[in-house]
Amino acid sequence: MEFMISSLSTSLDQELLNKINGKTKPLGSLGMLEKIAFQIGRIQESLSPEIKNPAVVVFAGDHGIADDGVSFYPKSVSYEMLYNYMQGGAAINVFSRQHNINFKVVDAGIDHDFDPSLNIINKKIAYGTKNFRFGPAMTKNQCLEGFRSGAEIIEGIHKEGCNFIAFGEKGIGNTSSAALILSLLADISLEECVGRGTGLDNNGVKSKFELLNEALHKYNGGNNPLDVLAQFGGFEVVMIAGAMLRAAELKMTMLIDGFIITSALLAASKINPKVLEYCLFAHKSNEQAHIKMLNYLKAEPILDIGMRLGEGTGAMVCYPIVKSAVQFINEMASFQDAGVSESEEIKTIS
Amino acid sequence: MEFMISSLSTSLDQELLNKINGKTKPLGSLGMLEKIAFQIGRIQESLSPEIKNPAVVVFAGDHGIADDGVSFYPKSVSYEMLYNYMQGGAAINVFSRQHNINFKVVDAGIDHDFDPSLNIINKKIAYGTKNFRFGPAMTKNQCLEGFRSGAEIIEGIHKEGCNFIAFGEKGIGNTSSAALILSLLADISLEECVGRGTGLDNNGVKSKFELLNEALHKYNGGNNPLDVLAQFGGFEVVMIAGAMLRAAELKMTMLIDGFIITSALLAASKINPKVLEYCLFAHKSNEQAHIKMLNYLKAEPILDIGMRLGEGTGAMVCYPIVKSAVQFINEMASFQDAGVSESEEIKTIS
Repeated sequence: MEFMISSLSTSLDQELLNKINGKTKPLGSLGMLEKIAFQIGRIQESLSPEIKNPAVVVFAGDHGIADDGVSFYPKSVSYEMLYNYMQGGAAINVFSRQHNINFKVVDAGIDHDFDPSLNIINKKIAYGTKNFRFGPAMTKNQCLEGFRSGAEIIEGIHKEGCNFIAFGEKGIGNTSSAALILSLLADISLEECVGRGTGLDNNGVKSKFELLNEALHKYNGGNNPLDVLAQFGGFEVVMIAGAMLRAAELKMTMLIDGFIITSALLAASKINPKVLEYCLFAHKSNEQAHIKMLNYLKAEPILDIGMRLGEGTGAMVCYPIVKSAVQFINEMASFQDAGVSESEEIKTIS
Repeated sequence: MEFMISSLSTSLDQELLNKINGKTKPLGSLGMLEKIAFQIGRIQESLSPEIKNPAVVVFAGDHGIADDGVSFYPKSVSYEMLYNYMQGGAAINVFSRQHNINFKVVDAGIDHDFDPSLNIINKKIAYGTKNFRFGPAMTKNQCLEGFRSGAEIIEGIHKEGCNFIAFGEKGIGNTSSAALILSLLADISLEECVGRGTGLDNNGVKSKFELLNEALHKYNGGNNPLDVLAQFGGFEVVMIAGAMLRAAELKMTMLIDGFIITSALLAASKINPKVLEYCLFAHKSNEQAHIKMLNYLKAEPILDIGMRLGEGTGAMVCYPIVKSAVQFINEMASFQDAGVSESEEIKTIS
C-alpha cells in the first residue's frame, strides 16, 4: 500500500506573500487567516485559491469494546444516529446545511442493516469490530480493505469537482480506539490519552483506563501503524486514514476535526508524513488528549470553543473562517487598487 | 443622558437548558455554542431565538493626536479607506458580504468632505478631534452629540427589523484613545495599555507611550466616563458607546469586535453596566491590551486567531459561529424526536 504524496511547492511563496501583504490592511493584521490563505495557495499552487464543492464525509463504525461500557451511551446510538443523519436532525446536518457543504455518510462497519434506499454509502467491512480486549479488532485484510475503501470514496468525491474535504465520524467507543492509537504511535503514556469521551465521570474514566490498559498490556505487536490500527482501530478510523492519504495525493485541502479524526491522521502520517502538509486543523477538542495529539503533530488549531461532539462538527463550525481566508485573498483590494496610502516605512522599501 | 436597560429575564432559563440538553449530542458537547444560544435565548426571551437582518456599522473619525505620529499610517488613510469601503474592497466588505450582513458606514468626524451621493451616513461632529496633548479632544457638547447620533442610528436600524448588530471603526490614531480610556476607566497603568496599533515597532510603541503619558499627566478631570471620553475619545468611539447603550435598551444582541470597540463598551458600561448583558465577544485581538480590557469586563472571547485589523472584521469572521449556535437550538432534533437512546444515567433522572 503506497501513497505518492507530493511535498508542497514553494515556488509561489513570495508572490503569495506579496499579494497578502499588499491588501488594504496593516501588515499581518488578519493573523491566522493569512496563514490559511497562504497554505491553501501553496496546496493549489495558485495566487487565487478557491474552495470548490466542499464536502464532509462521516464514516461510521461500531466497536466491540463498546460492549464493555467504555462509553456513556449504549452501542445502539451509533446506528440510531445514522437514521438521525438521514432525517437531517443531527448537529452535523445543521452545520453542513448552514455552510452549503455536501454531506455524505459511509457505513464503514455499523452493527445494523440499513435499508439500501437510504442515502448511506455502503462500505461495511463487518458488523462492528471485535472486542480488542480479546485479540485484534480486525484482521490485517480488513484493515487494508478499509484503506482501499476510504481512498475510493475520496476518488469519487474528487471526480465530482471537490477540492476541499472534512471528515467526521460516528462510533460509540471510538475515543477508546483513538486513545490507544495516540499512546502507541506518539509514545505517550496511556493514562494521559484516556478522557471522558461522550461524558464519563471520574470513575468512568478510571474504569475505561483500566480496561484499555489491560488490552494494551496484552498487545505485543509494536508500533507499526497498520498493526496498531488492526489491533485497536475502528473500521471508520482506518477508512478515514485511507481517505486522507488519497486526498493528499489528489492535492485536496483537508480540514481536520477533533480527537478521532486526528487519530486517523496520526496513523496516516506514520504511513506518509507529507499528508500533514494538506491539513488545516479546525479546533482543539475538549476531549483532553486532543491537544497532546495536535502538539505531537505540530498542528495549530483554529478554534478553541470547548466542542467535543464529533461527527465533524468542529470542522464544520470552523469552515467559514477558512472560507474567509480564501475570500480575502481573492476579493480584497490592494493599496494600489484602492489608492490608499501605505505607511512611510513600506513606501521607502518599494 | 439616561439609558433604561432591562436586566435579562431568567424566567426561561430552565426551559432553555432543557431544550439545549435534549438535543441529540452528548451533554455540553457544543461548548461555547451552547452558552451563546442560551444567552441569545435570554436576550430575546425565546426558546427559538433568531438573528434578524443582522448589520455591521462602521463609525469613522479622525484624531488630532494622529498628527503626532502615533500610528504606522498617515492620517489620510482614514478617509481613503472610506472610499475603499464604498468600492467594496476592504476586509470588512469581504466578510460582511460573505455572511450577507447589512453594512453601513457613518462619518462621525472624518477630516474630509465626502460627496453626498456616496452611501455614507453623515453624522460628522467636526473635521476630526483636537489633539488631546493640548486640551480636550472634544467639547462636552460634542461628546453628548456623539451619544445622541449613535443612539439615533441604532434606532433607524432597529426599525428596519434588525435585532443583531456589530460595530466597526476606522480612525488612524484610535488605539491611542482606547489605551487612555482603558487606563483611566479600568485603573490600569498606561504602560500596560499601549500597544502596536497598526504595526509600530518597539521604538514606536515607546514614543507613543511617552506622548500619551504626557497627555495623561496634564489631565486632571477624574474618571467619569463622559469626562474621559471628551478628553481622549474619538468621535467614533463616543458614537459607538451611544449606539451600544441604545441597542441594549432595544434588546438587540451585540457582537463586540476588538480593542477600539471594546473601549467604547467599557465607557458605555460605566454609564450603565447592564449593557454588558447584551454582548457577545467575538475575539481576542492581537493588540496586546485587548485581553486586559476583556478580563476587566469578565468577557470570554469566542475567537483567538491573531487578528488586529479593526473595521469590525473580528466580529464578522466570528459571526457564523454565533449563527451556528442559533441554528442548532432551532434545527437539531431531540433524542425523543429522533428516537435515539439516551445514556442510562439520563434515563434514570428523567
